[in-house]
Formats: sequence, C-alpha cells, structure tokens
Amino acid sequence: MNKELYVVGIGPGAYDEMTLRACNALKNSELIVGYSAYIDLIRAYFPEKEFYATPMRGEAARCRYALEMAAAGRRTAVVCSGDAGVYGMAGLVYELRGESETPEIVVVGGLTAACTGAALLGAPLTHDFALISLSDLLTEWETIEKRLDRAAEAGLSIVLYNPASRKRKDHLRRACEVILRHAEPLRVCGVARNIGRESEQVAVMTLAQLCSYEADMATTIFIGNPQTKTIGGRMVTPRGYRDV
Amino acid sequence: MNKELYVVGIGPGAYDEMTLRACNALKNSELIVGYSAYIDLIRAYFPEKEFYATPMRGEAARCRYALEMAAAGRRTAVVCSGDAGVYGMAGLVYELRGESETPEIVVVGGLTAACTGAALLGAPLTHDFALISLSDLLTEWETIEKRLDRAAEAGLSIVLYNPASRKRKDHLRRACEVILRHAEPLRVCGVARNIGRESEQVAVMTLAQLCSYEADMATTIFIGNPQTKTIGGRMVTPRGYRDV
Repeated sequence: MNKELYVVGIGPGAYDEMTLRACNALKNSELIVGYSAYIDLIRAYFPEKEFYATPMRGEAARCRYALEMAAAGRRTAVVCSGDAGVYGMAGLVYELRGESETPEIVVVGGLTAACTGAALLGAPLTHDFALISLSDLLTEWETIEKRLDRAAEAGLSIVLYNPASRKRKDHLRRACEVILRHAEPLRVCGVARNIGRESEQVAVMTLAQLCSYEADMATTIFIGNPQTKTIGGRMVTPRGYRDV
Repeated sequence: MNKELYVVGIGPGAYDEMTLRACNALKNSELIVGYSAYIDLIRAYFPEKEFYATPMRGEAARCRYALEMAAAGRRTAVVCSGDAGVYGMAGLVYELRGESETPEIVVVGGLTAACTGAALLGAPLTHDFALISLSDLLTEWETIEKRLDRAAEAGLSIVLYNPASRKRKDHLRRACEVILRHAEPLRVCGVARNIGRESEQVAVMTLAQLCSYEADMATTIFIGNPQTKTIGGRMVTPRGYRDV
C-alpha cells in the first residue's frame, strides 16, 4: 500500500463549497489534522473521524505529526482553509518531508478567499491580479510594501489576505497609502468578511474609504484596477469581451 | 420566484473537482450555456439537460442569450472552466445585464488553473503571487509587459494563463525575457498541461529552459520567486513557517 499524506483545501468552510475530491479525501482518512479553528468548521461533517487540532503557530509541529502518522501507515489528511497551496500547508509539508519518498504527498485544491470573496462582491478579478498577504510575521514589511507598490504601478487588481490582526491594526491603512501612490482615491474597492459563514458580509467602497476600514483576520480585501467599476452595487473589472 | 442566472466555475473538468455547490447549481438548471469545449467536458455528467454551446469569440452573444433565458424565467447557468471570476464570464454577465435587477446574478466559484496546477507541481504558490494572462487579444502587449516586469521586480511568484495560441507562438519567450531582467536564469519554474484530463502533464524546469518551452493554450506556467526550490522533484515556495 502506498503511504500517502493528503493536504486538503476545504474552501471557506461550508460543506457544499468543498470539491467532491476534497470530501472523498477526508471521508477516506482515519485521522484529520489541522488548526483548531478549521477543524471546528468540519468536525460536524465527519463525526466518526479522529481529529488532531492545535492552535495557531503550531504549524510545523502539526505537519510533522501528520507526516509521521502517514509514514506509519495511517490514512491521514492535513486540512487548510481555502486552498491547500495558497498560503496553505502544502509548502511546509514538502519542506518537512524533504527528499524522502515516504509518505507521498497529495495536494487537493479548494476555493481560496480570492475566488469566494470575488464571487460575493461581483467580478473584481476578471483581469490580471496580485495576491499579497499583509502579515509581517513571516515576511519583512519592506518586501510587502514593494510588492504593493509594484502591483499598483502595473495596474493589477490586488487582493489582500491577512489585512489585520490584534497586533497589526494599521497595516491596511499603510497598504492603502502605498497603493494611493499609483491609484486614485475613488478607485473601486471591496471587502468580504467571514466568507461562507452565517455572519458573512461584503461591502463596496472607494480606496479612500478603505484606508480607514476596520478589517480583522477574517477579512479579504479587493482593490480594483483602473477599469474596475460598480454595476448594480457590485464590483466588476471588465476584460473587454463586450467589445469583441 | 426570483429570476436568477448562475455563473458556475466547473474547475479543470473532472466531475469530482467541482464543488458540491457547483454540481447542485447545474443539477437545478434546465439550460446550461457555455463555450463548446467546456460544454463537451460536462455534457456526460448532466445528460438530461439542454445545452447551448457556441465557439470561442462568441462570449457576448452567449451571455446575452443566457441573460434573456434567465429573465424569461428559465433556470439557466453559464459555465466557465476554472473559476467563474478569474478570466471567466462573471464580469461580462454583469456588464451585459447592467443596472437592471433581473435576473439576479449568482456566481459559484470553481478551482482555477493556478490552484489545480500548483497542486500538481508541488506548492509553488505558498507566498504572494501575480496572475497574468499573455493573451493580447483584449489587452495591449505593453500593459502585459509592464505587469510582468513589475511582478518580477517585486519578487512575486507569477502564474501565466494563455501563454500561447496558434497565432501567438513567441509570447512565452518574450515574457521570460522580461522576467529575466529581474530573475536569475536558474529560477525554478513549472508547467502544467491539460490539467485534470487524461493527458495531464507537469514538468519542473529553470527559467532559462522555460524560454524555449513550447506551450499551448491548455498550458499554465508557474515562475517561482527568489526562494522557490525543488524538493523531491516538486516545485516548492517556502513561507517560513518552518522557522517559527
């Protein structure tokens, strides 16, 4: 039998936003490993499974445990919210396994917040975009600022993940100020909060308004490109098909 | 009854790569509208449905037809490969409907090739990235070139959609030359072709090798960031969790 470790993106959290393949990967697992907030989202869908949940900052220990269990022959899955590869655990699992051939790593995709948030807001990502995390826990702020600056200069739509936390209250404002070097204050922007949960909220606003928006860890931010507009209250980035 | 038009991302094409919500949206539709190559992918999964398929370049006419049918009360879905909002039809559908309140537009996400291709290659998108289309049918090449240049300068990983077509044979080489202004020739890159189909292929290579790679319309290209490396033959972009 192949010893495999599944790294599964569960999307925003609702059962029906998972792919069938992700559902089946979890159904076929004995042990499901993940950050406790994500395990809480799916525990009710798979009540007969064994769960191993640890809090934030326990990423490496949790993934090491999953690799060990899979190598020992247990059918194991690591779950990530959104997609397993977009700021997810897929990279860390490969790094920790290294060049060993066991277990085999199988990454199963899921809907990332850029896609689910965009669907709620309208169609902000119909054209080229950049996805940038504002968390400076693992990345220098100077690097983040350069990425924001160049993305805005290039006229890309920009999606921001991790725009704020309890310790990072002013990152979104600082990011908006960088983007304002190249974008007008009336640039169409949007926010999506608690995507896929009961308390889901979206709002369309200007870049000037976004500067003072109070985001939290569960907020995904969308900054339009120069062509982005509002249609019927939604945020829409055209791509030009209409004129073809 | 609300008159709704569903715009549904079907992912790469395999039935089990759809979300349950996308499956249900199509099961609940009477009429499914789309580009003929995508309709061919899903026709067998929903044999009892009525399909309206038109060739490429028929986007606006096809979406207008779907809006008319939905406004007339038919349960209608427009399908897109990948995600409905990432270079998909969601934006065009909003543009064509305009400020009218009927039909209501409901966008249902799907796995875009950036996510499905990344899962096959390893974990190339664990950190910030830009998604850029090389098609200059709807975008000036100068704009594309500027976006490539700034994304590479900022150290973003880059995913390229539409890297080639019968008429655009040298776009990938030209894109690589722009990226080489800021990236070393040994930068780790990857390609994923015919994702989710029987003829699916992936390869990891250097940026120098990518310059002369013969891509086609069904190829998605991944250019790593300065930290991207190969682990066990896979393409992995670390994010630093390992050191936390």
